[in-house]
Amino acid sequence: MKFNKRNIFISPTAKIGENVKIGDNTVIYDNVEIGDNSIICNDCVIGEPLSSYYSDKDYKNPTTKIGENSLIRSHTILYAGSTFGNNFTCGHRVTIRENVIAGENLSIGTLSDIQGFVTFGNYCRLHSNVHIGQQSTIGNFVFIYPYVVFTNDPHPPSNICKGPTIGDYTQIAVHSVILPMVEIGQNCLIGANSTVNKNFDDELVIVGAPAKAICSVKEIKSKEKEGEMHYPWMYNFERGMPWEGIGYYKWKFKDFNITTNS
Amino acid sequence: MKFNKRNIFISPTAKIGENVKIGDNTVIYDNVEIGDNSIICNDCVIGEPLSSYYSDKDYKNPTTKIGENSLIRSHTILYAGSTFGNNFTCGHRVTIRENVIAGENLSIGTLSDIQGFVTFGNYCRLHSNVHIGQQSTIGNFVFIYPYVVFTNDPHPPSNICKGPTIGDYTQIAVHSVILPMVEIGQNCLIGANSTVNKNFDDELVIVGAPAKAICSVKEIKSKEKEGEMHYPWMYNFERGMPWEGIGYYKWKFKDFNITTNS
Amino acid sequence: MKFNKRNIFISPTAKIGENVKIGDNTVIYDNVEIGDNSIICNDCVIGEPLSSYYSDKDYKNPTTKIGENSLIRSHTILYAGSTFGNNFTCGHRVTIRENVIAGENLSIGTLSDIQGFVTFGNYCRLHSNVHIGQQSTIGNFVFIYPYVVFTNDPHPPSNICKGPTIGDYTQIAVHSVILPMVEIGQNCLIGANSTVNKNFDDELVIVGAPAKAICSVKEIKSKEKEGEMHYPWMYNFERGMPWEGIGYYKWKFKDFNITTNS
Repeated sequence: MKFNKRNIFISPTAKIGENVKIGDNTVIYDNVEIGDNSIICNDCVIGEPLSSYYSDKDYKNPTTKIGENSLIRSHTILYAGSTFGNNFTCGHRVTIRENVIAGENLSIGTLSDIQGFVTFGNYCRLHSNVHIGQQSTIGNFVFIYPYVVFTNDPHPPSNICKGPTIGDYTQIAVHSVILPMVEIGQNCLIGANSTVNKNFDDELVIVGAPAKAICSVKEIKSKEKEGEMHYPWMYNFERGMPWEGIGYYKWKFKDFNITTNS
Repeated sequence: MKFNKRNIFISPTAKIGENVKIGDNTVIYDNVEIGDNSIICNDCVIGEPLSSYYSDKDYKNPTTKIGENSLIRSHTILYAGSTFGNNFTCGHRVTIRENVIAGENLSIGTLSDIQGFVTFGNYCRLHSNVHIGQQSTIGNFVFIYPYVVFTNDPHPPSNICKGPTIGDYTQIAVHSVILPMVEIGQNCLIGANSTVNKNFDDELVIVGAPAKAICSVKEIKSKEKEGEMHYPWMYNFERGMPWEGIGYYKWKFKDFNITTNS
Repeated sequence: MKFNKRNIFISPTAKIGENVKIGDNTVIYDNVEIGDNSIICNDCVIGEPLSSYYSDKDYKNPTTKIGENSLIRSHTILYAGSTFGNNFTCGHRVTIRENVIAGENLSIGTLSDIQGFVTFGNYCRLHSNVHIGQQSTIGNFVFIYPYVVFTNDPHPPSNICKGPTIGDYTQIAVHSVILPMVEIGQNCLIGANSTVNKNFDDELVIVGAPAKAICSVKEIKSKEKEGEMHYPWMYNFERGMPWEGIGYYKWKFKDFNITTNS
């Protein structure tokens, strides 16, 4: 019922893979490369020209790469000059600016706004309406929930632009603000509505405004399995994860290398 | 000046009522039913196929029902499989996923994001940019203000998905977070920027992070009428309410049944 | 690569200046005036009719004025009846309702939602996803960061509608809520995630929920220049400001009058 090829514009310099579907009213600009079996839904703009396009007569659109098996939902805008690994999925009305480098299986929710110059590891999940400021670095298996904001200017307005760095497996709950240059370790849980203004080590539960570490994540009891602990969450959650069906322990032991970007 | 029938796609299986207007660039997919005298503005997607559409060759779009006299503003996306009562209105760029069941006179503001599997009573009003997680239940005459988030996973990520339940007439002010499974009574007022992590009874003013009940709503003095109290608000506000012109007391006495969904 | 004139609708009563570019799928309604050298990108709606259009057979769209050298990015909706000075720029998916009066060089970020009946001075900058309620007044050189909300109803729902008033040069950091009728002085800094429920004088650092003044902005040390102070920020930041290249002091002395709207 979709993909009737109505009112689509594709630049002659775009490279469209095998079996790619493109929705109505979508525009694909110069030097976009879309991997095989990907789907771009209606009303999207892919390879949106950078600001300099409007002033530079010799402007050349940088290359935009979208991996195989990706699904970009409607009304999404991806600027030129970013690279996304395979199995990239995004919700509706997502905006991603230039110079984003993302690993595989990145999922970005409806209305999220990635300001560019951001690095994502593999298997990151951003829920709806997450705002990531420029110059942020996000590890592997990091999940970020709605209305979280990453900032990058410690004294607005200044000439400093440096976002947070988040370690692998860390979870950041809804409505939290992570202040500029903050470094969060691996396997942390940042509670809802927190304002994080300093660095924290691994495996901590971090809550409040300003946020404090209140305990180890290992002290949080499961609400699903009586008498067990919930974190590290990888032992208790597998939907869409590479350890789905085999369990985290077995997966990590067999195939350790793919948990890092190096 | 609108409704020139340019670049519109309507599925042959859609049922469009009498005197319905449809804006430019709008797409209406299979099995959508739109009631008489409704208006769907520009650039909308109505009956957006569910995720399984992309993988299931035998996919059949579930029925989407929009009641009479509805007004859906531009760039809105309604997934297939939801039902909205008469006089449904929504702002721009609203996203509503599948399996929402809404009573009459639902109003949803610009950029709001309803994640599906949500029940609304009658006369609910969501302002701009409200996020309602799956499996939430919202009573009648509940008003929710900008940037409020309803969550549904107590230990992210887990396999639990159960949102809050909100009683009739309750008001939830801007930037508040309601945590999973929380139950709020009727006629409460939740203050701006609150984080609500436990249940509360009727008629309470609930503020802070974590939120506490600080008094009865009946202790809040009106800023409009000297010497009077403002809450329960139904005695002091009637714009768009079924008691407009006759007053809440008279309306409730004459016509008690329509205040509940049962 | 853009501006191929595909699927554009322009009302015959619109006045389009010299050298204006208009993107694909954009609609420009009655009585819109666009100044010379402006760019309107793809999928925009300019001069969106007001609510009364749907019910009033004699509806006449009020005039919408966009100044010269403006850049309106894709998927933006500007309602009829607002006036924007020269060099207006806005991000993607911005919504601006009727009766906004803006000075020159206004910049509004992606997803921001201006509810109408708002006054902006010159050189204001709103970052992504800022929500400004009706009847707010914003001075000159005011910068507002992501997810800030200005409210206007002290006892929701009531019949009062009066937003905040913000003095020149004041900075409002991410995720803050400014409550109705609050007046903030000039040159203040409101910290991240604050809830501001009362008036504050000039040059204060205002933080917390409810927000308190903790010191003068003049006590904040620069992170860029050792031994110096950062605020008032105009002495240390000039990108895009009228004092770029000459410094704030020299600019203010030579050309004092243009810092105010009067």
